[in-house]
Amino acid sequence: MKVPNDISKSVIGRLPRYYRFLGELLKNDVTRISSKDLAEKMGLTASQIRQDLNCFGGFGQQGYGYNVPALRAQLAEILGLDKPYTAILIGAGNLGRAVAGHMTFEDKGFRLTGIFDVDPLYKGIKIKGLPILPDSQLEDFCRDNPPDMAVLCVPAEAAAAVVEQLVACGVKNYWNFSHYDIKRAYPDVNVENVHLNDSLMMLTYQIKNRRENET
Amino acid sequence: MKVPNDISKSVIGRLPRYYRFLGELLKNDVTRISSKDLAEKMGLTASQIRQDLNCFGGFGQQGYGYNVPALRAQLAEILGLDKPYTAILIGAGNLGRAVAGHMTFEDKGFRLTGIFDVDPLYKGIKIKGLPILPDSQLEDFCRDNPPDMAVLCVPAEAAAAVVEQLVACGVKNYWNFSHYDIKRAYPDVNVENVHLNDSLMMLTYQIKNRRENET
Repeated sequence: MKVPNDISKSVIGRLPRYYRFLGELLKNDVTRISSKDLAEKMGLTASQIRQDLNCFGGFGQQGYGYNVPALRAQLAEILGLDKPYTAILIGAGNLGRAVAGHMTFEDKGFRLTGIFDVDPLYKGIKIKGLPILPDSQLEDFCRDNPPDMAVLCVPAEAAAAVVEQLVACGVKNYWNFSHYDIKRAYPDVNVENVHLNDSLMMLTYQIKNRRENET
Repeated sequence: MKVPNDISKSVIGRLPRYYRFLGELLKNDVTRISSKDLAEKMGLTASQIRQDLNCFGGFGQQGYGYNVPALRAQLAEILGLDKPYTAILIGAGNLGRAVAGHMTFEDKGFRLTGIFDVDPLYKGIKIKGLPILPDSQLEDFCRDNPPDMAVLCVPAEAAAAVVEQLVACGVKNYWNFSHYDIKRAYPDVNVENVHLNDSLMMLTYQIKNRRENET
């Protein structure tokens, strides 16, 4: 399925949530749902849902609603979840291990193929059956087993050097937990950033303003 | 400082990034910067920076630029980072431990005061000097030590029950890593969501579409 290029970022940003909710419905054996009922469950309006899904050609049928497994399968395809991916993890600290554990690799089609960390303390340690390798083996590894994506969980000051290596090895896709602006240095790669500290600041911003509004 | 209510969400969403970049500048002993130079560093335009910061009253002086430490302090105040916060962690698995470790509590004014997990296996284990407590002690704890925020790192199916307890205990602020829609159930609380799986799908979406565009 070819996704049109002019879909707004905010529509695309809502697709994972649709995908999750449809998964919940399927778990509860709901195989058909009206846009009104789906809207109620998701805290949206029915017209917003119809508008969002119409961007991709419209999956609903008037008077019937949505076929849940079919719609979910189509969203999976749009989101690129219909193919398996291999990933390498860079940085095996607490965060890296948590993210690797959280990716639910197996059931979603993600397969962790390599783990790298500069810290010699990790030598000989395995995560999910994979040995933690030193950065010196990164280039050879990527040449022999080109990964679909790299998950970057290293401190900001270490990120630039390792991304330079990865880009040179041909890695084009990054799930980036480091505070390093990959996209600015390499505009042609795909990057999805998760900035935990920024997110925490968005919470303190809410707290601060609520407090001041209350006084 | 009173923050106006009509600031757009996207401006507010950029503030943590300004705050981070200004911190980098300070680390490198840069104490004054023009909007043009700041724009270049951040991959924005000078006029965007001026517009963003003008929303809060405008901190720059024509012909001088921005005073880095002063601007950073003002952003900290706007973002609510000028006050200390206490936090409790719900869920002491890999993700919870990583998030707790990543919050850099000490230097940013966040103090972890309690850790809770239903798993009896954690009994007697300490993280950062704090014992992992069973959920049965949550209410007493929150009454005696009301936390400013709860960091939610439990599976979606466990989240509803624990949030009900927390809201009843008066906890109003949530940093939510669970796939549970707190805001929908409790519209009056402050919530900042981090949905790791959704973020990963945004990456696969990019990969999928780049691939198809290339073929």
